[in-house]
Amino acid sequence: MSKHRIINLLRNGQPEEEVTIQGWVRTKRESKKFAFMEVNDGSSLANLQVILEPELENYKIILSQINTGASVEVTGILAESPGKGQRIELHATAVTVYGEADPETYPLQKKRHSFEFLRTLGHIRTRTNTLGAVMRIRNTCANAVHQFFQQQGFLWVHTPIITTNDCEGAGELFNVTRFNLKDVPKENGEVDYSQDFFGRQAYLTVSGQLEAEAMALTFDRVYTFGPTFRAENSNTSRHLAEFWMIEPEMAFCDLQGDMDLAEAFLKHIFKAVLDQCPEDMEFFNQRIDDSVLTTANNIINQEFERITYTRAIELLENAPKTFEYSVEWGIDLQSEHERYLCEEYFQKPVIVTDYPSAIKAFYMRLNDDEKTVGAMDVLAPKIGEIIGGSQREERFDILEKRIKEAGMTPEQLWWYLDLRRYGTVPHAGFGLGFERLIQFMTGMGNIRDVIPFPRTPENAEF
Amino acid sequence: MSKHRIINLLRNGQPEEEVTIQGWVRTKRESKKFAFMEVNDGSSLANLQVILEPELENYKIILSQINTGASVEVTGILAESPGKGQRIELHATAVTVYGEADPETYPLQKKRHSFEFLRTLGHIRTRTNTLGAVMRIRNTCANAVHQFFQQQGFLWVHTPIITTNDCEGAGELFNVTRFNLKDVPKENGEVDYSQDFFGRQAYLTVSGQLEAEAMALTFDRVYTFGPTFRAENSNTSRHLAEFWMIEPEMAFCDLQGDMDLAEAFLKHIFKAVLDQCPEDMEFFNQRIDDSVLTTANNIINQEFERITYTRAIELLENAPKTFEYSVEWGIDLQSEHERYLCEEYFQKPVIVTDYPSAIKAFYMRLNDDEKTVGAMDVLAPKIGEIIGGSQREERFDILEKRIKEAGMTPEQLWWYLDLRRYGTVPHAGFGLGFERLIQFMTGMGNIRDVIPFPRTPENAEF
Repeated sequence: MSKHRIINLLRNGQPEEEVTIQGWVRTKRESKKFAFMEVNDGSSLANLQVILEPELENYKIILSQINTGASVEVTGILAESPGKGQRIELHATAVTVYGEADPETYPLQKKRHSFEFLRTLGHIRTRTNTLGAVMRIRNTCANAVHQFFQQQGFLWVHTPIITTNDCEGAGELFNVTRFNLKDVPKENGEVDYSQDFFGRQAYLTVSGQLEAEAMALTFDRVYTFGPTFRAENSNTSRHLAEFWMIEPEMAFCDLQGDMDLAEAFLKHIFKAVLDQCPEDMEFFNQRIDDSVLTTANNIINQEFERITYTRAIELLENAPKTFEYSVEWGIDLQSEHERYLCEEYFQKPVIVTDYPSAIKAFYMRLNDDEKTVGAMDVLAPKIGEIIGGSQREERFDILEKRIKEAGMTPEQLWWYLDLRRYGTVPHAGFGLGFERLIQFMTGMGNIRDVIPFPRTPENAEF
Repeated sequence: MSKHRIINLLRNGQPEEEVTIQGWVRTKRESKKFAFMEVNDGSSLANLQVILEPELENYKIILSQINTGASVEVTGILAESPGKGQRIELHATAVTVYGEADPETYPLQKKRHSFEFLRTLGHIRTRTNTLGAVMRIRNTCANAVHQFFQQQGFLWVHTPIITTNDCEGAGELFNVTRFNLKDVPKENGEVDYSQDFFGRQAYLTVSGQLEAEAMALTFDRVYTFGPTFRAENSNTSRHLAEFWMIEPEMAFCDLQGDMDLAEAFLKHIFKAVLDQCPEDMEFFNQRIDDSVLTTANNIINQEFERITYTRAIELLENAPKTFEYSVEWGIDLQSEHERYLCEEYFQKPVIVTDYPSAIKAFYMRLNDDEKTVGAMDVLAPKIGEIIGGSQREERFDILEKRIKEAGMTPEQLWWYLDLRRYGTVPHAGFGLGFERLIQFMTGMGNIRDVIPFPRTPENAEF
């Protein structure tokens, strides 16, 4: 017996075909003459409708067992469906119930549940339509990420999770330790990290960029795709303590090339999802956010606008509206500013470049004006910044100076400086938070609902 | 100017073609009439030979700059190479040197370096032949992993890195904390984890299996591919504190299906690497371990032997040799036993099944004999266990009992038990350490040399 996935039957199944499916019951309806059940195997949003007739062996027993959540194997004959809403249905000739689900206690009954409630059921919430669709889109996106880069000769590099660097200098780091916290060894009142597993203080990484740069200076083009961490006490709909990040890095590349890659990347991912998950995307457009399809097509079909930060400030100063945060050259753009630019002024994605050096990280390349750096942020309608990148400072002396200005020492980053000492080249890259991309794509309001098991302050269940 | 990757020129470049390459100088040789340099851009093991003639603009200056490690862009005309060892060479018409590398201080001069020494140069060691080849094979393997599963409808699921479970119960866990270790909050002499970021004690995961099971019970087929951690104080050539693991999980699947998947998986990965990285594999066979190609072909072409643990013990008891660790039913197989079975007795990969329950994890399915569990280990020549998997215990009562016997409480694993309460199904999966696979494939002696930035006791540099 080889089994069929429901998505394939719904798309290509032919009447008269004998097939076997395995999955979980979503609903059951009984009439006098026969019964229906809807079965889902996770391969698609839509269920397969199964018809059970009284001639079926153990009909009565089976009917009592196939409540919502039960697991079944059904063999039967496909037939055109006379009902609305499906092309095809399955007339069961044999049904096996593997595991029941007591209707008195199974939490996912047919009624609608809040996403908040579902978060307490992280182990089974993907059995609902919305969370199931999210996870399929997540997989399709992830796969499209790899395809995009692999086709262009990028190497996937696994940069370290446990690190002794603080790349962003933000200090929002989780400690990683083998110490018994009840009794941390000390020397003259200070923690004696020399006794810890790594012989020094270690953290969870906030970015693989610095190590990816090292790899790009051998392999020309690399990308990371792995978990990163922020120990930020932010209980918002946009923050996770643990999230996945994608960071491409290219040698012999400047800011133009970086922007080109970012734009091509987003177009590729959105196109892949529209092509491969049309039903799921339609569902989000109908049930979650009716601008989702428009936004996706917008990303795919429109050339992104590219403007400098200085020009962006001019546009904001001349905007026919008042912002909560006032605008002047030197400020960090706020969400309201970013949204004005892409939603109102340009009405499409906008790449803002050449930000003031004072508000950007030490590794970004200093422009000739010595006031701005070769940074770029991709701003998208409805969401704001979706990608942040830059050309990296490849000149040894300037980088060393910037490291010191940022309050670090050249000794801490000796190896990163070495990359500028031996065979340095112009290089550039960007970072993109994978969960924000999924949020953007699906319109899901809370980032906790686009990752299987979210980690946030006070929450590491499952 | 669009640039060419060296691997494409070496494979398909035609004489008379004008091309531009970018990369790093590996060697330079000068003669009276002209100079050669070998350039590598990370896309292949082999370098492209570049001929520089005195007519070239700034010939003398360029010659003084193109020492080993310097970064260059070369435009020129391809020509058939009269020399040995390459089909094609590049006659330079323009050379730009981006970054020099002082021959007095650049550590990677032409002479051979020990792998141990190279580990101190993690940021540039991939610029050597061996480490470069390792990372290309690593990328090809990683990509083949995704292809294998995606083609069969498996979803890539991102299980959590920060966790409050200890899946293996082994206790070799890193703590994750936001506490200032100098002053950990206590309550009645015990650490007050309620004040920590997650409100409870948190660790780095040792396996995503339990969460993957939850996802498989929605999506039927899923896999993880992500970092996992062991805080084991093992300074061996086979242990890392941080490594990547692949864990597929299938619903409606028993031990047979699990073995079939494991065998098909290994065959697919080895075939992909032989097809896509022939030069790199040839290099490992010549320089590192001359059995590497034989082993790969062995994996691809031979049907794996499948025997029970009980049969394996019989074979070992009757072996015409003495083992260091004596053999009797109930022991955990030692490396010498595993190697005897696959290297001497069967001379091919062997899958051993149905191990004593006492030596296996609580989640493995109890067989009807109540002494063994539906476990399987795939043993490979030269390396021993490469994959470990099992059918999972899907019966609520038995699982609950096994959890208690393992010294845990059903409350700790309430959600994992829930999966057996609501719509349980037979399911199975396995785990494979990605770095051990790469070691196996390349013959590299030390696992620290098959991951970009290894983490081991006393070592988290870069």
